[in-house]
Order: sequence, then structure tokens, then C-alpha cells
Amino acid sequence: MSETFNPTTRSMARRKADRAAYDEASVYAVLDAAVLCHVGYVLDGEPFVTPTSFWREGRKLYWHGSAASRMIRAQGSGLPVCVTVTHMDGLVLARSGIAHSMNYRSVMAFGTARMVEGLEARREAMSAFIDRLYPDRSAELRPALDQEIKQIGLVEMTIEEASAKSRSGGVNRIAHDEGWDAWSGVIPIATVVGARQADAVQSAGAQPSASLDLYLPGARLDEVLTAAHKS
Amino acid sequence: MSETFNPTTRSMARRKADRAAYDEASVYAVLDAAVLCHVGYVLDGEPFVTPTSFWREGRKLYWHGSAASRMIRAQGSGLPVCVTVTHMDGLVLARSGIAHSMNYRSVMAFGTARMVEGLEARREAMSAFIDRLYPDRSAELRPALDQEIKQIGLVEMTIEEASAKSRSGGVNRIAHDEGWDAWSGVIPIATVVGARQADAVQSAGAQPSASLDLYLPGARLDEVLTAAHKS
Repeated sequence: MSETFNPTTRSMARRKADRAAYDEASVYAVLDAAVLCHVGYVLDGEPFVTPTSFWREGRKLYWHGSAASRMIRAQGSGLPVCVTVTHMDGLVLARSGIAHSMNYRSVMAFGTARMVEGLEARREAMSAFIDRLYPDRSAELRPALDQEIKQIGLVEMTIEEASAKSRSGGVNRIAHDEGWDAWSGVIPIATVVGARQADAVQSAGAQPSASLDLYLPGARLDEVLTAAHKS
Repeated sequence: MSETFNPTTRSMARRKADRAAYDEASVYAVLDAAVLCHVGYVLDGEPFVTPTSFWREGRKLYWHGSAASRMIRAQGSGLPVCVTVTHMDGLVLARSGIAHSMNYRSVMAFGTARMVEGLEARREAMSAFIDRLYPDRSAELRPALDQEIKQIGLVEMTIEEASAKSRSGGVNRIAHDEGWDAWSGVIPIATVVGARQADAVQSAGAQPSASLDLYLPGARLDEVLTAAHKS
């Protein structure tokens, strides 16, 4: 049985509550299918939303950037953040404007961002991030130099509250729409992997190791990332 | 010659300034290739990031939701927002962890959100949104009832400041990485259109009109949306 995040007014869905879930399994399924998130934070009372790559371990989310960046320096000092992840799954077309919609899966996760200190902790986290995306790849890489790790600002956030929302399926049929004949249905949308392009100097003609086996041309990125996270 | 947004400290890139641009053409190219944005705002000092669909007309961005939603009610009262749009274009793999990267295009746009009042203004805006996605489609639809328009909360934001950032191309080769043989290169990522699924009752066997001609299976969504915006 999956644990549940206890929603307060911050994360409780007001509208379309039937599309909302607060259990870990629902929240993690959306998070672990993604590598891109949007981190919201407040500086001098104003909102900022920065896109960045992230990963999850247990109830913790991690992301990183230059240790000198505004986002990392601000967040690392213990700042409330909202991390939002969204998958767009389809455009829903109906016979009336109001019945048009979008299929999607999204999570809003709330917590306090804190900088991870210590060279070893950062070194291990960066390897964990590589391996989360590309299973076992970190062992193949040239080890990071201390001076490289020092340039990395690593932020962690324990999820205090989170809500998942989604819409799937077809068109909502409305009685008023009967008799109108605009085409109605769903145009699926998916984010997919393309054919990999080897670096012409470093890897011309080289075959990647098994760490990239999941990244087949045409594969759905959300499915690849979900599989990589579990492996 | 494209106009330029004048960056203040709010939108000026601190890091990797060579990846940043502030001209309208660069900013609009990223915005008009998207339908999904992440809207950041502050309530009681805390950050919220809500994913939603949006569109652009001139320097104005529009999005909508239920007139009863927390986001729409809060934003409509004249709230500072940050609207961020991100396209993920590729995963960049190198011989060392630090040289791994991501190819992307993103925009952070800042302004003040305000509710659009008036039934006619909202009715026209909703038709403009339909036509922005699906050229000329609004004329095929069952016209909106007043009671439907009243349920829609429409928000507009004039872009006061915006910055575009992007990374493209291949692997950054680092001298320290020489001699290591982990595969390096780029795994392209793209968001694509799938084969449309007609509503089984309303549109079984029906052919859509020309408004959907751009949405061919396998087409890149960013290219479809860019073309639809211009047509």
C-alpha cells in the first residue's frame, strides 16, 4: 500500500478533484517518467520558474546547477519551492470550444530546497543522477575532479506535500453539441527518443554500452525514464 | 529588426550568458512553438507553479481556466507572474559526468496577470485560441453559450521582460576526458504528434477539415504549432 501525502490547502485540488491524487505511487509515477521539471521560487516577493533536470530518491528530489547561479544560491539557503512536472499526452478536440481539452499528467510537489554540502555527497549524487538516467553508466565515466565537484551546486528538497493531476481518454460529449459536425477526437502527443548521434571525434563508429539500451529510436521518453529509474 | 526586451536583474542571465537572448524574435520563436507553459505565482509568500495551455498575441500572453479556480482567481487580481516555456531537444552524453548536458530552448517571461472581463472579449479570445492551434477551426464549432463563457476565467499578461536561453549542438570536449572511452554524443528528443483517434460516436469515419492538416502523424509538435501560429 502506497503512502499518501497529506494535502493541506497548498496542494489540495479545488477544481476537477476527480483528476487529483495524493498517494506516493501516483506522484512518483509522474515524477519518475520525467527528467525535466519546473522549479518555482520567490525572490524579493517575485515569482521565478526555472526549468531544470531533476531526479528522485525516496521522498527527496534533487537538481543541480552551477554553484554560482542565482537559482542555486537562492534555493540552497532554505527556500520554499514548488516543483512541477508535466507530461502532455494529447490534444482533445470537440464540437464546441468549451469541450476542447488536453490530456496530461502532472505533479506539483512542495518543500524546502537546501544545498547539499560536502564533496563526497555531491560526487555520489552526481553519479546517482547519471545512473538514474543511464543505468550503470557512472562506472564507465572519467571520475570527477574535486575542482569540478566544487563548481556544482546540488539542491535537495524533501517533498512535504504533493498532488498529481491527470486527464486521459476521449472527448466529453455535451448535449448542446449534437448536430454539429466539426471533427472530434484526440490527437495523441508523445515525447520520443531519436536516433543517437555519436560524437564524430570521440565515438565515431563506437557502440554504446548497455547503459543506453533503453534509448531506442522511437521509444517514448516517459517509458524509457520510468524503466531506467527502476532498473 | 526585432524589438528587444530590456533585461533588468530579474531576467538577465547570470550564467552562460552566451546562451541567452532578449530580442522579441528569439523569445517569440520559443513561445510560439509551444502550447504548454508553466505559470509561477506567489500566494501568501509561497511559490506555486501551474502547468497550463497558453497562446501569444503581440506582447501579450493568454491562458484560461475555470473562473472558480484558485490560480485564475489569484492571478486575475493583478499578480506578478513568471511564465516559463521549455522545449527539450536532446540528452548530451560525455566521457565525464560534468560534461553531460541537455539541449533545450526555454523562455522566462515576466509580467502582471490580469483577468479579462466582458463576455465578448472572452468569447473572441477563446476563438482566437482555437484558431491559433487549429487554423480557422473556430468557425466550424458550435458557438459558445453565454453560460459557458461565464465559466471561463481568462487571464492576460503583457510581457514586461523576457529572456530566451538555449543549448544546441554536440558534446563539449574536455581535455581531461581524453583516453576514456564511454560513448559520447547526443540522443535527440522531440515531442511528436500521433495518429488521431476519432470519437467513435461523433466522428466515426469522418475526415477532419483543413484546420487539422498540420497535425500529421510523426510531425514535430513544435513545428506544427509554429506553422499554425503564422498561418
